[in-house]
Amino acid sequence: MIIVGELINASRKAIREAIESGDDAYIKEVARDQDQAGATYIDANAGIFVGEEGKYMKWLIELIQSVSEKPVAIDSPDPKVIEEALGLCRVTPMLNSISLEKDRWEKLLPIVAANNELKVVALCMSDAGMPTTCEDRLKIADRLIEGLTAKGVKAENIHVDPLVQPLGTDHKFGLEFMESVRAIAERFPGVHFMCGLSNISYGLPARKFLNRIFMAQAIVCGLDGAIVNPLDKGMMAAIAAAETLAGKDKSSIRYLRAYRQGLIEA
Amino acid sequence: MIIVGELINASRKAIREAIESGDDAYIKEVARDQDQAGATYIDANAGIFVGEEGKYMKWLIELIQSVSEKPVAIDSPDPKVIEEALGLCRVTPMLNSISLEKDRWEKLLPIVAANNELKVVALCMSDAGMPTTCEDRLKIADRLIEGLTAKGVKAENIHVDPLVQPLGTDHKFGLEFMESVRAIAERFPGVHFMCGLSNISYGLPARKFLNRIFMAQAIVCGLDGAIVNPLDKGMMAAIAAAETLAGKDKSSIRYLRAYRQGLIEA
Repeated sequence: MIIVGELINASRKAIREAIESGDDAYIKEVARDQDQAGATYIDANAGIFVGEEGKYMKWLIELIQSVSEKPVAIDSPDPKVIEEALGLCRVTPMLNSISLEKDRWEKLLPIVAANNELKVVALCMSDAGMPTTCEDRLKIADRLIEGLTAKGVKAENIHVDPLVQPLGTDHKFGLEFMESVRAIAERFPGVHFMCGLSNISYGLPARKFLNRIFMAQAIVCGLDGAIVNPLDKGMMAAIAAAETLAGKDKSSIRYLRAYRQGLIEA
Repeated sequence: MIIVGELINASRKAIREAIESGDDAYIKEVARDQDQAGATYIDANAGIFVGEEGKYMKWLIELIQSVSEKPVAIDSPDPKVIEEALGLCRVTPMLNSISLEKDRWEKLLPIVAANNELKVVALCMSDAGMPTTCEDRLKIADRLIEGLTAKGVKAENIHVDPLVQPLGTDHKFGLEFMESVRAIAERFPGVHFMCGLSNISYGLPARKFLNRIFMAQAIVCGLDGAIVNPLDKGMMAAIAAAETLAGKDKSSIRYLRAYRQGLIEA
């Protein structure tokens, strides 16, 4: 599972305050904790600071890289912020995210084309709005993947985000998402996935519990990447168990390791 | 989800002792508890008492029916025991189970054919041994379903049990099981499923946790029935969440009810 550690995001109060007060120790601590907890990438997002996003993104990336060798996920839609961030990254980062929205597509495609080792999250969203069915998502994924590969991006560097929508809005939204993961994986062998799946439980009680069950289900449909809090032991345990049950863990080595690390309560 | 409450099984020490000492109050209590916890059927199994199985099966069924209106699952391979049990059932029971093993098939098919409202568990097992791949299971399911429907059994009365095998034996066994559920559901619309899935975690730590995650995953592949302990709140919570996420719970009514009943810890 490709895990993007989601915590260094300025829309979270603790991170916003750390940025505002220049508390570099706190940012380093959160980066280190996520690295040790098993994050594959460390997300960096300073999007709420309009006009100063670039400055803070730079600061965040430098702090992250001072304590972790894990690659960064540059979480911004702004081409200037991204270009500057790319220059700082010691390890090939992930860009989160391009989409089919005209403005975003046109501005980010040249950057992705010029940095074709970059991992890029391809969000299934267009100017027609958010997709709701599996079919909608397949159509958008089709155009995203063809557009990116036409520019020399390898399938294995594309992480499709089929876009999770809340069950509270439509009780089929979870199923449509999972069916789209299965369909995209079947149609485009080699591409990866990425998603923030906590939206699924919006408005429902016991959200963490629902999110973990949904993660386990999506993994069996082919999901191989997600933006999560790697310090959420219950979520990391669900991921370990789900991958083991889905046949991705020979001799249950990773499950047994997760158990020994105390992630799983007996 | 069709839930067969598994607790009244003489291979469990408490039940064996209750049978031996004629403790009817205990059997009634376990039947009532399973009914109230949401069992669709109450399993009755006295298989360990060779030569006396029929007598004890009768006793169990009468006790169950004295406190619950839920149908019974007659859990025996013995045609005499089954015939006698059938005569006692006030509500159409489930028979657990026929299989493709020659002896069992030949002895039980006439009973099933003569009682064609009976729900019958069709276990994917033949004299060639236990199936390991999805393909093996499909072949056996094919013959079971065709053989049963040729005798007038309706697809909706057949509950295929694709047979869960331990992950500890082969790390692909969970995946093969789930793929077979998906394939059987696709090839035979209308048939249901049944399975005891705790075998999956045999030999691994934190078995209950693994079993719940596996249940959630199998549900998204199409599993709609299982033999479980309905008093296991964590399992019942996983089932409620998994069905809701899989699009089977309009307006999340059942999930919200499970939450209010305290099944789900926030």
